[in-house]
Amino acid sequence: MSGLQVHTDKHLLGTKDLSEQEITSILDRAAYWEQYPVKVSNHLQGRFVANMFFENSTRTRFSFEVAEKRLGAEVLNFSAAVSSVQKGESIYDTVRTLESMGIDAGVIRMKPNGLLAELAQKIKVPLINAGDGNNEHPTQALLDLYTMRKQFGHIRGLHVVIIGDVQHSRVARSNLWALRTLGAKVSFCSPPGMQAPELAEYASYISMEEALKADVVMMLRVQLERHEGTLFGSAEEYRASYGLTVERAERMAPHAIIMHPAPVNRDVEIDDELVESPKSRIFPQMGHGVPIRMAVIERALS
Amino acid sequence: MSGLQVHTDKHLLGTKDLSEQEITSILDRAAYWEQYPVKVSNHLQGRFVANMFFENSTRTRFSFEVAEKRLGAEVLNFSAAVSSVQKGESIYDTVRTLESMGIDAGVIRMKPNGLLAELAQKIKVPLINAGDGNNEHPTQALLDLYTMRKQFGHIRGLHVVIIGDVQHSRVARSNLWALRTLGAKVSFCSPPGMQAPELAEYASYISMEEALKADVVMMLRVQLERHEGTLFGSAEEYRASYGLTVERAERMAPHAIIMHPAPVNRDVEIDDELVESPKSRIFPQMGHGVPIRMAVIERALS
Amino acid sequence: MSGLQVHTDKHLLGTKDLSEQEITSILDRAAYWEQYPVKVSNHLQGRFVANMFFENSTRTRFSFEVAEKRLGAEVLNFSAAVSSVQKGESIYDTVRTLESMGIDAGVIRMKPNGLLAELAQKIKVPLINAGDGNNEHPTQALLDLYTMRKQFGHIRGLHVVIIGDVQHSRVARSNLWALRTLGAKVSFCSPPGMQAPELAEYASYISMEEALKADVVMMLRVQLERHEGTLFGSAEEYRASYGLTVERAERMAPHAIIMHPAPVNRDVEIDDELVESPKSRIFPQMGHGVPIRMAVIERALS
Repeated sequence: MSGLQVHTDKHLLGTKDLSEQEITSILDRAAYWEQYPVKVSNHLQGRFVANMFFENSTRTRFSFEVAEKRLGAEVLNFSAAVSSVQKGESIYDTVRTLESMGIDAGVIRMKPNGLLAELAQKIKVPLINAGDGNNEHPTQALLDLYTMRKQFGHIRGLHVVIIGDVQHSRVARSNLWALRTLGAKVSFCSPPGMQAPELAEYASYISMEEALKADVVMMLRVQLERHEGTLFGSAEEYRASYGLTVERAERMAPHAIIMHPAPVNRDVEIDDELVESPKSRIFPQMGHGVPIRMAVIERALS
Repeated sequence: MSGLQVHTDKHLLGTKDLSEQEITSILDRAAYWEQYPVKVSNHLQGRFVANMFFENSTRTRFSFEVAEKRLGAEVLNFSAAVSSVQKGESIYDTVRTLESMGIDAGVIRMKPNGLLAELAQKIKVPLINAGDGNNEHPTQALLDLYTMRKQFGHIRGLHVVIIGDVQHSRVARSNLWALRTLGAKVSFCSPPGMQAPELAEYASYISMEEALKADVVMMLRVQLERHEGTLFGSAEEYRASYGLTVERAERMAPHAIIMHPAPVNRDVEIDDELVESPKSRIFPQMGHGVPIRMAVIERALS
Repeated sequence: MSGLQVHTDKHLLGTKDLSEQEITSILDRAAYWEQYPVKVSNHLQGRFVANMFFENSTRTRFSFEVAEKRLGAEVLNFSAAVSSVQKGESIYDTVRTLESMGIDAGVIRMKPNGLLAELAQKIKVPLINAGDGNNEHPTQALLDLYTMRKQFGHIRGLHVVIIGDVQHSRVARSNLWALRTLGAKVSFCSPPGMQAPELAEYASYISMEEALKADVVMMLRVQLERHEGTLFGSAEEYRASYGLTVERAERMAPHAIIMHPAPVNRDVEIDDELVESPKSRIFPQMGHGVPIRMAVIERALS
């Protein structure tokens, strides 16, 4: 088991098990890469990284691919929708196949919850979670923390509110674990049908009025089709109750910032005019995804 | 605005605004690359070019990718069908996202008309139009001109006839603007339902009989499904009236050539036997796409 | 015709026309590449290889891509489903297009039978068959032979039984030709509706009882949807009659091995527990695909 343990340390399955020191070391290394003067280095020359997307996501894949190529790695892209019936078995066989072909690390996104930990026990090459079900999306949280630390100089003591469909959000969970580990206070703001009861012991649910007092207002993408037939199945209703409107944004503290994992639904969870407003860090966040992923891949392969 | 103007000069949105000198300089540089002895150079080492295809086109994407790799650039491919409802907003957000990840230039294809000019105002990295709606497809026109210049030694004074569905053709428009700028005479030959009235002041519509006297007979791909229920919804009817048949090709001048932007509908707009006949430049055209795109990408990034 | 002949020698259309010496030379070169100490060499620097998949297959494409990148080649991926109506013409036009863009070799997979030989007559760059219809899949057979030779030290005198839907299997055919050329004895074991009568003169059909005495038990993937409404349209019925169950595997000879071209249908043609059992060479087979494909691509381009 100790040999297995070593491998497991190189996986990045979530932020839940990362120590403060591990998170800080990734953020520091990302800062190094953000300043790196050469666009393509030869750090990972001759190493193969496979992006295995069993659930579609062009932006996240693209961000990983830029990171891998900037590190000088050879990149292989694999994307395949997997039906719910055959999912676990088929994902395992595919990853084992790619492993047997000699890849050095795998970036993986998939729909099923809980499968990744099991997979990481069986696969020898390091796996990096690029989003699994509503469980974790660790590189998104790390780039969010990077953005906050760049803005405020520290994470400890910040109040971060996450607004929207917490129940279905891996972004909310990964941020919750990482922010708590680094000493921030996390609150949620969600309509009843979008709350995650099992997280209630880690973060309290607050009103929109309270939420606007936070240092960081992080909006989640709402998928209205999931809530059809309910009060929040309509974009107008959702915006009226939980959207970050221009009027609400004006009530935020002067030093506070707006974040969103993207892609945004303009004029649903966030008003169109706010997306590139001075308070918004939405596009800078995406930019930070590249150095964060460089740090994470380098960690996996070092 | 002057800073913006500088960026706009690096974009390639269409041939309409290119000067004779600019076109000639691209053609000359393509001639350099066509002769270049080494297949992969390091001219663009460490630069990232993203091929962003919001409308599918494997051939054009492939041609750009070969060009980018021959220049030594890092290539990222992105393709996503975009529904008509969310199109403008979604395309903008995606391109801004890729820009924020650090790409150095973007090649872009999309369905909507008129969106690209707006996009180019907001995006800082140079954009190269790989076809937008029925507006422009500038690299296709440039490779067509390259093919003609290679054949005849000059463009000035040539008579080029473009036959087919001019109304829906960005190839026709880009060729019209570029050919006129370089001093060629352009005519169209189309059934009434396929004519573009707004272009009537730049090129006259002539009969098939007249068309066969031109120096260059450029056939357009007809999409019969667009004309279902009309006289030209049938392949046989279309071929009989506007197809380049073997019999018609025999009446062309001995020095004249046949062109087509491909993919061809064999035995609809052009007879199967003509595609690789001595008069045809169809496959050489596609070959010229690579050096032309090398010249265009190099221009964007220099 | 003699110039054409030279090109044809560089194609790899199937194993049927390969001599013993040619096969052995590919296996030997694969052994060289399997031991090669550097992951990415510069053997094919500046050469372009296009993977043209007219029928989807992520694993095979991935294996070729790793092989091409380990050789230092530039890789272009093209995948397009081709409707049955336009298939022949469209595949030819696409391959000619890519050829005119300057690719140095093409890896090609397609549904139609018999089209590849015709294509190879017309295309000047070497083509490597990555699977065509139920005709041939030569690199799969070569990696299978490589696996057997590695296991037993030789091919001559081995008894290899191929179990399953032989009629629809290009893997069965390519293995049959290559194994016979190298002096192995091949038998088939299939239910009546899955037999290939035209192969009866080269291999006899034997019972499962007999099959379990072979040195190599090669299972084929069964596509049950092809046999709906028949006795073998049910996974249970198929497994009971022709599946390699744990109980049956125990009756195999101690030295014998299990093979499968993958992906496997666990608990249909092979029991889940056998896939990674000591007798199984299934994942090592996939690993051998990379050096075999390196040898084959190098051969095409040398």
